[in-house]
Amino acid sequence: MPDIAVRIVLCEPTHPGNIGASARAMKTMGLSELVLVAPKLFPSADATARASGADDVLESAQIVATLAEAIDDCAYVVGASARLRSLDWPTMTPRVCAAELVARSRTDKVAIVFGPEHSGLDNEALARCQTLVNIPANPAYSSLNLAMAVQVLCYELRVAGIEPGDDDARLIEQRDAPLATSAELEGFHAHLEAVMLRSGFLNPDHPKLLKRRLRRLFNRACLDQTEVNILRGLLAAVERSVPEPSQDR
Amino acid sequence: MPDIAVRIVLCEPTHPGNIGASARAMKTMGLSELVLVAPKLFPSADATARASGADDVLESAQIVATLAEAIDDCAYVVGASARLRSLDWPTMTPRVCAAELVARSRTDKVAIVFGPEHSGLDNEALARCQTLVNIPANPAYSSLNLAMAVQVLCYELRVAGIEPGDDDARLIEQRDAPLATSAELEGFHAHLEAVMLRSGFLNPDHPKLLKRRLRRLFNRACLDQTEVNILRGLLAAVERSVPEPSQDR
Repeated sequence: MPDIAVRIVLCEPTHPGNIGASARAMKTMGLSELVLVAPKLFPSADATARASGADDVLESAQIVATLAEAIDDCAYVVGASARLRSLDWPTMTPRVCAAELVARSRTDKVAIVFGPEHSGLDNEALARCQTLVNIPANPAYSSLNLAMAVQVLCYELRVAGIEPGDDDARLIEQRDAPLATSAELEGFHAHLEAVMLRSGFLNPDHPKLLKRRLRRLFNRACLDQTEVNILRGLLAAVERSVPEPSQDR
Repeated sequence: MPDIAVRIVLCEPTHPGNIGASARAMKTMGLSELVLVAPKLFPSADATARASGADDVLESAQIVATLAEAIDDCAYVVGASARLRSLDWPTMTPRVCAAELVARSRTDKVAIVFGPEHSGLDNEALARCQTLVNIPANPAYSSLNLAMAVQVLCYELRVAGIEPGDDDARLIEQRDAPLATSAELEGFHAHLEAVMLRSGFLNPDHPKLLKRRLRRLFNRACLDQTEVNILRGLLAAVERSVPEPSQDR
């Protein structure tokens, strides 16, 4: 997937470590456009250290004096808000916000704006945001670190940016062999039953419940052909070493 | 909403700052159960500083010597993996993983396990994970900071706790027995290995790939306690009837 063209704007960040950690958070999620509005201290060794391998994002960060300079060319600006505002500014969840930003970023410049660590966005900044995004947090302790908030929103942007299909495969386990056919499964269960009888584990008079339970277990595992071969190999090895009960033949 | 009862396990974390930041990340999302496996340096002023107002989570963190102690009582253990593994361990997205963990946490103890910063989970730890979770990251720079990864997964857990259903694509099967704990699964695998050796199926010189495949298979099945008992009953029956190889004693 291409880079996610959403600008991250940090207004007057106090701790340079947060700038570095934000750059790293952005790069891990495929974002690269960082704008710093009047940072208290930057550049800084702390920022560079926390950026880890994302120093390119840090180095290409734009530094501007006012929020206006950071977002004047943007068609859609979202403010990150730690609390739900009293004035009922339209507020989105990170997921909805990410879908909206990714969609709009295809045709327009868009940005998310973060306020200073201790105070958040002031009313003047708020007034420039079309909407707010609020990360749902523990009401008893909603104090997300600034870079953590950047990470969560960039993560949602990445997930939103993944084209349907791209990562769908992740939900399904990758197999190195085709799934076993129904007939192969029957062969396995018959073999398993034979070994259970031979070892004396399965009571031939009341086999049903146990057999059902084992079917349910192995059905849940969705065996592939390699696995059926392994299990049957084990059953064959056991068979060879277990003496046949005398009544069998 | 109530606290999210998912245990966060950090294996051998190197940087105490990450422990503190993880505690803060957890608390902002309503999680409180932190277990540290052999932390390099803890307690530490760095950890306390980065925890900010989450010092209660830090203070109540359990410190143990081995991963087994951290998860033996858990019925479902997910490993956080930065890369997609070669043996294709079943891997979930954070969203699917969170829905699964929140659902399972209502009846069972569950955990997410994070490896050390620079190396991630080793194979021994991996073998104790039923599934993995992979945060989709920029393939060109997938180096998420440890505490950032904790934040993203805790965020998804919180969202899953708030909005059950929406993304709950996975069907949770109804069970008539509690899921087996991690310690019970270890007991089963040890027993299985003993029987495989005794029957001559497992080559004691090259046991690894086969054992990993079987772990993957049975992890996928999410065994419950009745099923573990059945399988161990079968193994015991086989053991009783297979003559011991002469070199055993």
